[in-house]
Amino acid sequence: MPPRRDWKPRPFVTLTYAQSLDSMLSTSPGARTALSGPSTKAMTHFLRSRHDAVLVGVGTAVADDPGLNCRLEVEMGGGHQPRPVVLDPFARWDVSASSKVVQLARGGQGLGPWVLHMDRLEPDPARVRAVEEVGGRYVPVELTEWADESQDREGEGGATRYSLTWDSIFGVLWEEGVNSVMVEGGGMVINDLLLLANKGLDVVDSVVVTIAPVWLGSGGVAVAPERPVDGEARQVPGPRLTDVIWNQMGDDMVLCGRIMR
Amino acid sequence: MPPRRDWKPRPFVTLTYAQSLDSMLSTSPGARTALSGPSTKAMTHFLRSRHDAVLVGVGTAVADDPGLNCRLEVEMGGGHQPRPVVLDPFARWDVSASSKVVQLARGGQGLGPWVLHMDRLEPDPARVRAVEEVGGRYVPVELTEWADESQDREGEGGATRYSLTWDSIFGVLWEEGVNSVMVEGGGMVINDLLLLANKGLDVVDSVVVTIAPVWLGSGGVAVAPERPVDGEARQVPGPRLTDVIWNQMGDDMVLCGRIMR
Repeated sequence: MPPRRDWKPRPFVTLTYAQSLDSMLSTSPGARTALSGPSTKAMTHFLRSRHDAVLVGVGTAVADDPGLNCRLEVEMGGGHQPRPVVLDPFARWDVSASSKVVQLARGGQGLGPWVLHMDRLEPDPARVRAVEEVGGRYVPVELTEWADESQDREGEGGATRYSLTWDSIFGVLWEEGVNSVMVEGGGMVINDLLLLANKGLDVVDSVVVTIAPVWLGSGGVAVAPERPVDGEARQVPGPRLTDVIWNQMGDDMVLCGRIMR
Repeated sequence: MPPRRDWKPRPFVTLTYAQSLDSMLSTSPGARTALSGPSTKAMTHFLRSRHDAVLVGVGTAVADDPGLNCRLEVEMGGGHQPRPVVLDPFARWDVSASSKVVQLARGGQGLGPWVLHMDRLEPDPARVRAVEEVGGRYVPVELTEWADESQDREGEGGATRYSLTWDSIFGVLWEEGVNSVMVEGGGMVINDLLLLANKGLDVVDSVVVTIAPVWLGSGGVAVAPERPVDGEARQVPGPRLTDVIWNQMGDDMVLCGRIMR
């Protein structure tokens, strides 16, 4: 991920997830792990009602087959549903008519999903059809070319790399009219955003972490952002939250804050 | 650590530590990392005033040169100080007259430390002297012989192992008149006790975890207990807390509970 500073306009970004005391999201990659209690689940659905879109990485889409809708709005007969967004650079999500998010959209309990993928790649037509039938679509995101300074062995500016940047991802959402997005996981997405935030980049506005009083144990999917190194190869300490509010819900604790800059 | 069930009488055990959101105790092994704020530090000293002993592993003793006394009692002119206990199986702690715990004891602001080591090993006489001069001592703990079933390839009962068990460690403290002990770290001690507790062993009575709203980032010393496997080689989920109380202190959150059995 290049350290770009020429950011495009982007939506308000809320990063939210539920973790164990030992900072695990699940017991193993691909395992669906029940962590938070009913109160914090309700809070998640409330937060979804307050955002234009809900974004997860493809790993979470594959592992959890999530609904990504707002159950509260469904129960109260309300009209606002967040747009489900799956970040799927290589278009590997095997979305079909039986995917939960598609079923919910077909039943009028959610919107059709947007699948964000690399623009140089042609998604599978059957998957595109499954998504478009319920009002969703595949949204291409432009690859960003950048110089990877970490590979700069001879002072020539480093290797040229291409990747999807959060700048482009959030930029596309903004252009599509999304004013606020709730990023819900999984581990790679969360650690990547926390790493960028720790580098001083303005990528996350608000953080909401639910902590369940349980240890999942080593070997799970951990939230532990990589530590960047500074100009003298010293590791930079991790990000700290400011404007901290803690709020107990059942046995869980919910932490809200902003990342200090 | 053998799964012994014939436990000796032992003191009341409180496990307590401060961690980051990503479950790190410090940025790297041996690094002293300031995590918790002044309120939770004061709580730690209050808890020390309520226990007969404070135990840390030798890694913490070497890395932090901790005082392990109760500052509140010193400030209020009180008489009760907890006994500092360093768990040091191989007697490798280079304790001397300049160690903080020895200095505090010499100044009447704490008790002389007890150093728990394997009984088959003769500690360095200079270290014994440094400790004894301030009323502490080296306390031998008997090695326990046990059959390591995990090495039982041919149904012959496994390999014979010798180790210091928590049964013996806490048993020795009990015999020495310690009715309550506060275990403060480090990572190895905490993960070991949580693993045993997760196996259903009765080793920890109370848990007090301070969580600071900061990420230390990957590569630090993490609390993440190993997951035991059951008879059919399935991983057992980690321990869960019961009788949970969360209490905000400054920007930190303090979690108290008991481990569910």
